[in-house]
Amino acid sequence: MNGLWLTHQTLQLRQDLPIPQPAPGEALVRVLQAGICNTDLELLRGYYPYDGVLGHEFVGVVEEGPDHLVGQRVVGEINAVCGHCQYCTNGNSTHCENRTVLGIVNRAGAFADYLCLPEQNLHPVPESVSTDAATFTEPLAAALEIQQQVAIAKGDRILVIGDGKLGQLVVQTLALTECDLLAVGRHAEKLANLEARGIRTGYADAVQPRSFDIAVECTGNPEGFAIALKSLRPRGTLVLKSTYAGQLSLDASALVVDEITLIGSRCGPFPEALQLLAAKKVDVSSLIQARYPLRDGLTAFSHAQQRGVLKVLLEM
Amino acid sequence: MNGLWLTHQTLQLRQDLPIPQPAPGEALVRVLQAGICNTDLELLRGYYPYDGVLGHEFVGVVEEGPDHLVGQRVVGEINAVCGHCQYCTNGNSTHCENRTVLGIVNRAGAFADYLCLPEQNLHPVPESVSTDAATFTEPLAAALEIQQQVAIAKGDRILVIGDGKLGQLVVQTLALTECDLLAVGRHAEKLANLEARGIRTGYADAVQPRSFDIAVECTGNPEGFAIALKSLRPRGTLVLKSTYAGQLSLDASALVVDEITLIGSRCGPFPEALQLLAAKKVDVSSLIQARYPLRDGLTAFSHAQQRGVLKVLLEM
Repeated sequence: MNGLWLTHQTLQLRQDLPIPQPAPGEALVRVLQAGICNTDLELLRGYYPYDGVLGHEFVGVVEEGPDHLVGQRVVGEINAVCGHCQYCTNGNSTHCENRTVLGIVNRAGAFADYLCLPEQNLHPVPESVSTDAATFTEPLAAALEIQQQVAIAKGDRILVIGDGKLGQLVVQTLALTECDLLAVGRHAEKLANLEARGIRTGYADAVQPRSFDIAVECTGNPEGFAIALKSLRPRGTLVLKSTYAGQLSLDASALVVDEITLIGSRCGPFPEALQLLAAKKVDVSSLIQARYPLRDGLTAFSHAQQRGVLKVLLEM
Repeated sequence: MNGLWLTHQTLQLRQDLPIPQPAPGEALVRVLQAGICNTDLELLRGYYPYDGVLGHEFVGVVEEGPDHLVGQRVVGEINAVCGHCQYCTNGNSTHCENRTVLGIVNRAGAFADYLCLPEQNLHPVPESVSTDAATFTEPLAAALEIQQQVAIAKGDRILVIGDGKLGQLVVQTLALTECDLLAVGRHAEKLANLEARGIRTGYADAVQPRSFDIAVECTGNPEGFAIALKSLRPRGTLVLKSTYAGQLSLDASALVVDEITLIGSRCGPFPEALQLLAAKKVDVSSLIQARYPLRDGLTAFSHAQQRGVLKVLLEM
């Protein structure tokens, strides 16, 4: 089969890959479409030592697996877990200590014609949700993870930093709460997407220091982090939603003096994400920047790496 | 009066200071004894731009103030607050946006014959609590702040990093909960203080990675922070109890991937600290390294700045 293969931080299009064989309890999924995420770009930059097929945001059709799934359009949770470690048994299975992670840790990913995942990871996509929309299930679930970790009260002043693809999903999910929301970014046309949905937006200079209860950092760069930290009132909460390449330098004394809480946030709930998509409460169509067939995957990656580009999709 | 005066990161013993005049609602306190804290040493290194009399851990006798306080031995909360800002009115007055802070921000401190504080900041010292013990009320309250911020459950695996004066108080307060505690440090004789109280101790190599629910960083140095971060299980909590001079560099991706919570922690509750001292549930006598009269304050500071030294007291 075809696939985008990462080795030693070099990506190649390979046509000689064997179709993966599902292990017991796993299903074989024919990939329809997949999205390029910032984590993919960071893997390419060596943020984590992974060699293999990249990709973890996808929609596919089950070709081999249990009867109730075969032929179904599905999305899939990316952590393949052991089911018996302390994290699996106490409800924190996304932190399973024996996990493999689709296209990230020891498991061939979604930028290929086929992938395998445990059956329990797969969620049928409701009829009413388009394949385009469903491709955003994974990042939308990650955006929803914030609300699993931080209780958001009516009127909470929340700042989201970053108007990129993850930032926009975070903003749209938070806009569904009764919080007092401001989204800041660097790109007028991206902020316009959010303005069109009635969300207050601005550039970094719109951020009043020490005036937010919660700040969500979605840029993955130190400038974004600095804006987030400065924006918070004492005892405020800073949610780190992006992974960072390399070390982050911060004024830890400010954290102590203002008793700030910093929370790292990763994968979230797929069922809630699919519900939001089915109810059309979140718009993802404005996030699609370009589409490429898998065979043009290297061009697609070059495009995705350009500054300010939103979601680039691969079609299989 | 006499006092230790900081100006441009230089400390001098001055004998020409006027006795401070209490503002309305404030009391005049004759200082009996005061303790040198790491924050004092960091102010001396320029961590915060303060000029004036240093010192914020003290026991004194009220000389001018309301009848029920005059003649009483007291300790004092260090934040002098406005009473009407959003933090004062919502129960977070230690974060008052108009506060002065004894010996730290715009308020002459305790390393002098006299100081002034609002009457409401003063807490009479119970008869049964010695002046030596009461001098530790402020750092003991800061240690107790952790339990105000983080719910500690029976059996929680808690690591405290740092066997210095604050670390030892943190360890002793956490040992009063039903947690599973390990204290690590660099000094056999300091760890022995804790061992003698039945607390499990060790050096950094005793820390099993990814095995603690909560880690409390009390060293104020990057090595201590790194040990804390590494020690935590996914979704663990890292409490930053020390202020840091300069920037701290950290692996923010580890925070995100493991969904770690980082909490800055500062001033805590005086009444609970005095109760613990009165009940003799915490031992502070082993933390006293040396005593100097105020007139030898510069020598006292030299002593306090030596590596590994515990609490140095100043007697007025």
